[in-house]
Amino acid sequence: MIIDLKDNERIDDLQRNGYQIIQKQNGFCFGMDAVLLSGFAQVKPGERAVDLGTGTGIIPILLEAKYDGIHYTGLEIQEEVADMAKRSVVLNHLENKVSIVTGDIKEASRLFGAASFDVVTSNPPYMNDAHGLKNPDLPKAIARHEVLCSLDDVTREAARLLKPGGRFYMVHRPHRLIEIVTALKGYGLEPKRMKMVHPFVDREANMVLIEAVRGGKSMIKVEAPIIVYKEQGVYADEIYTIYGY
Amino acid sequence: MIIDLKDNERIDDLQRNGYQIIQKQNGFCFGMDAVLLSGFAQVKPGERAVDLGTGTGIIPILLEAKYDGIHYTGLEIQEEVADMAKRSVVLNHLENKVSIVTGDIKEASRLFGAASFDVVTSNPPYMNDAHGLKNPDLPKAIARHEVLCSLDDVTREAARLLKPGGRFYMVHRPHRLIEIVTALKGYGLEPKRMKMVHPFVDREANMVLIEAVRGGKSMIKVEAPIIVYKEQGVYADEIYTIYGY
Repeated sequence: MIIDLKDNERIDDLQRNGYQIIQKQNGFCFGMDAVLLSGFAQVKPGERAVDLGTGTGIIPILLEAKYDGIHYTGLEIQEEVADMAKRSVVLNHLENKVSIVTGDIKEASRLFGAASFDVVTSNPPYMNDAHGLKNPDLPKAIARHEVLCSLDDVTREAARLLKPGGRFYMVHRPHRLIEIVTALKGYGLEPKRMKMVHPFVDREANMVLIEAVRGGKSMIKVEAPIIVYKEQGVYADEIYTIYGY
Repeated sequence: MIIDLKDNERIDDLQRNGYQIIQKQNGFCFGMDAVLLSGFAQVKPGERAVDLGTGTGIIPILLEAKYDGIHYTGLEIQEEVADMAKRSVVLNHLENKVSIVTGDIKEASRLFGAASFDVVTSNPPYMNDAHGLKNPDLPKAIARHEVLCSLDDVTREAARLLKPGGRFYMVHRPHRLIEIVTALKGYGLEPKRMKMVHPFVDREANMVLIEAVRGGKSMIKVEAPIIVYKEQGVYADEIYTIYGY
């Protein structure tokens, strides 16, 4: 098959089902956070999932590789990035299982309809200090800073998109945990599972994975942490398992 | 010095400053949660601290051993348990630094006055399923189940007792984390530090340590976890450090 690679793009192997993904040589690449989220999230047979702010489409493609959901959607506002994701779907022959939609997270429930998904995932922009950005229109800034959508927007749309009992999986920065919990509760999403990610066992957490259930009752499980490195430069075994090596 | 030991009581060494504590042979003993809380909490020179539901007085006595606070108070509703704590204070010659007061947490701010402490600590009853208890009046049941005071009571009184900028340190069960965060926020206490305690590195958390600041701004640090055992039956080095061995 001939896939049109643009300037500065490359194809990377995902180490799972033979899948590959198109990324920028030095720019828009998926991170460990997306991979850990796809390991933390669960999609049951027959379920429909949507990823809000999908970037290169890494999360729906990894979820499709791991689970028996019936369909996966990725929503991405940046035309050029969404186009990369669409070509990755074709590259992996997933046109019947994964759809990439170009659109705004803030409009997601209007776009797809309320209560239309069993699962929502998101690896949203982490940083809310967007006012200091020199180039707020650059793709990386839009992915990392709350330029185009806030934590509140993502949470509100996730709640609207989910069926009652549906599950929202998010990866975010621990320093915003209290804001996250407050936003989730405010939109009727009850946090049910939480997993901290620490670079080393004796360092503070630098990522948090959360599962919240629409209309769930208050009772959360704080799972075993993910410790990324067992020593300097050597990943813990769990990381290889999640990456699928 | 002659300390009156009652039936079924024993004196245990605290491995710190030569301090000792009076406990019941088979009943009301302090747990690892109290020790970990006293390691997590901080009292600065000149500060006044109060421990809500102090039991045997373990937390104020350990804090006095570790920090240069000016005064430590322990509040305990159970007459017999408070009496043990009072005798432990005398045993350690701490009458000028530690006071044990017999009284109800629900009345704490009336008893001591609003905004009268820099630090509040609490290892409150964890369980809210008190309705199933056979003997709700037993000392252990009162310490473990929300028979006489709820999470909401402890949080409200902590907020009232603290000066603006004062710090509340609590140990609790992780499955109630969302309730805890909601209660703290509701009373103007902003969670600023959190530390999970896992029995083993690959098991879910069974304790959570939280620091909340009266009137703090939203930004939390999730510290390195405490992993209690490095292998079956062998404590991690950190546990020995916290215990003071």
